Amino acid sequence: MTISPEQPGVPDNALTPSPAAIPGLEELRRDIDAVDEQIVALLARRHLTVQRVVALKTAHRLPVYHPSREEDLISQRRDQAVRAGLDPDHIEELYRSIVRHSRVRQTVQVSRVPVRPGARVLLVGAGGKMGRYFAEWFTTTGYEVRQLERGDWPQVGRLCHGIDAALVSVPIDLTVPVIAQLGPHLPPECVLADITSVKAAPLDAMLAAHAGPVVGLHPLFGPATHTMDKQLVVASPGRAPEACQWLLDQFVAWGNIVVPVDARQHDHLMTFVQALRHFATFAFGDFLCRQQINLPATLELSSPIYRLEMGMIGRLFGQDPELYAEIIFATPERRALLRDFVLSLQQHCELLETADKEAFTERFRRVTEWFGPFCGQAMRESSYLIEKLVERF
Amino acid sequence: MTISPEQPGVPDNALTPSPAAIPGLEELRRDIDAVDEQIVALLARRHLTVQRVVALKTAHRLPVYHPSREEDLISQRRDQAVRAGLDPDHIEELYRSIVRHSRVRQTVQVSRVPVRPGARVLLVGAGGKMGRYFAEWFTTTGYEVRQLERGDWPQVGRLCHGIDAALVSVPIDLTVPVIAQLGPHLPPECVLADITSVKAAPLDAMLAAHAGPVVGLHPLFGPATHTMDKQLVVASPGRAPEACQWLLDQFVAWGNIVVPVDARQHDHLMTFVQALRHFATFAFGDFLCRQQINLPATLELSSPIYRLEMGMIGRLFGQDPELYAEIIFATPERRALLRDFVLSLQQHCELLETADKEAFTERFRRVTEWFGPFCGQAMRESSYLIEKLVERF
Repeated sequence: MTISPEQPGVPDNALTPSPAAIPGLEELRRDIDAVDEQIVALLARRHLTVQRVVALKTAHRLPVYHPSREEDLISQRRDQAVRAGLDPDHIEELYRSIVRHSRVRQTVQVSRVPVRPGARVLLVGAGGKMGRYFAEWFTTTGYEVRQLERGDWPQVGRLCHGIDAALVSVPIDLTVPVIAQLGPHLPPECVLADITSVKAAPLDAMLAAHAGPVVGLHPLFGPATHTMDKQLVVASPGRAPEACQWLLDQFVAWGNIVVPVDARQHDHLMTFVQALRHFATFAFGDFLCRQQINLPATLELSSPIYRLEMGMIGRLFGQDPELYAEIIFATPERRALLRDFVLSLQQHCELLETADKEAFTERFRRVTEWFGPFCGQAMRESSYLIEKLVERF
Repeated sequence: MTISPEQPGVPDNALTPSPAAIPGLEELRRDIDAVDEQIVALLARRHLTVQRVVALKTAHRLPVYHPSREEDLISQRRDQAVRAGLDPDHIEELYRSIVRHSRVRQTVQVSRVPVRPGARVLLVGAGGKMGRYFAEWFTTTGYEVRQLERGDWPQVGRLCHGIDAALVSVPIDLTVPVIAQLGPHLPPECVLADITSVKAAPLDAMLAAHAGPVVGLHPLFGPATHTMDKQLVVASPGRAPEACQWLLDQFVAWGNIVVPVDARQHDHLMTFVQALRHFATFAFGDFLCRQQINLPATLELSSPIYRLEMGMIGRLFGQDPELYAEIIFATPERRALLRDFVLSLQQHCELLETADKEAFTERFRRVTEWFGPFCGQAMRESSYLIEKLVERF
């Protein structure tokens, strides 16, 4: 799929002189190599200095992410770029990459200090992918982690004894019954939380099953995410938010951004953010498969944007079908909306039948108007990514 | 839409010491600033040296893009990174960005030397967006450019006199009649080419209308593309390829990758690469608009992948509806396939009705199998882009 540097269609022009024959060219290339060697040596020195900063920060329990320091640093480099006749946007891009890479490395080190040292965390459903993922993060951060699996219910009393938090990470249709079964065994001060991708029903179940602190969580990322840096976690308030705060703070310490959203509002928005999008992508991939299209041939003719779009489809099918089934089929309201989506597509069949370009462009313009300034922003963002894709692959 | 550094949920912990109070921290930060200043100064020096390379290359008519030199340069930096304890992938990423940025600047300068100096190029339909785009590239590269618009047919004889190439860039449904009208006026040695997004019918029309060299072109990018660097241009062979070569070479000199594909094969593949994808995206955006979803609220809850997917939709609606109408409604076969797509979605309605997760996951697995190794590659590529998106916005 990679576009080969030996491109089809590149003319083999025998009249072109070889680079070796041009006086001065080799010397200039050696100059460039020498400059590049110094740049990488400076990056190595920078890395060592950053490590010393990390050691200081860890010793003084300072947070790793210091937005204003990062922005200062980047403006300074932009200013210097302008003075030196360089493209400030490109220098900013390079420095965002350097700074982020260094921050992620720092976060990995510093986040391994617990926000609440000595706390005991029970993971219910630690055998699942997300359960295993969080079990590992809590463990390596220094928490005492206990695991409750399907066969462990006879030991539930012992497992719950003295815990500070219980995190429920079980398949969506088991969440409510598992919470009901767990509730009576929890210590009164224990924080009860779940990480299900719907929030209203689990939150109601938690409030009914446990009289202590309750918070519903939805991490908007999968277990394939290596760093939590800047990843979103939705937190739907349940009860006693101040007692739940340390748990949210731990997510923040890992680099997450915690967004408070009402449970019902969350469920409504997620129908669009997750279910509709995944369903549409599934249906598209399914159609390509049914049509047995020549995938390599279409990829060879791919503009970067098509390649990016095909990448999003391939990405879905590279993941866990059960996870997507859960998201798509979560609630009857959600399924009804997806059926409405299919119906709305049927309406376009008539346009296709009559080849009515005017009706199409009129509808198109109405949608553009509805999207408003987002279209312009989307153009800029996706153009930037296409640049990155062309650069890298 | 930008995720603010002042994140909701970040704890304001009064017990955290201020950075200023930590001995040694300010000094280390000054060290980092000094290193960064040297790095940017070296990038400026690198830029000046590259400019001297460009001047030499231009003087000796050497191509700008030298893949093996770029790969050598990058391997050297990777090796140095490993020795210096840096992440070689990150250094490669930085250098790909530096090298590409420098190459694009070079291409802009060098490509302004014509492959066929003194040639005269007639642009038919230069008033359209793509026509204007190519008129500008040919003009700034030093060609004599003439333009034939709707009202210029009385002057067609004079406009065609002595031209070396005619490039037809008119709406898809005018392409065939315009070619038929133009053909009799062309000099026998003139290259006749079109840039329509379908190839079979225009190519047949060109071969019928003109006895000289013929080639069908399809640039896989829009007029919003600032650089042609590594952009694809499909070339469907018509007649006398050696006489058409200079025109293809000019595209290569501008940085394009020219891919030779049979016209009928092209049209079949493009039904999937362009029409199906655009139609699906249109239908999705249209549904969001009909449902009047709360766009800002869903974006606030966006994982990077959703943000990326919404970006692709917003991007479509930020562009020219007529262009998409042309692509989607191009041929009766194409419209029939799009109707099949809608029908295939209807089949999923039953799944939704019965909430049949098992049938869904079974179908999902079959598609995953059909995609094969592409899924893994798509995961890697899209993960890389998500990183870039998180870094930048």
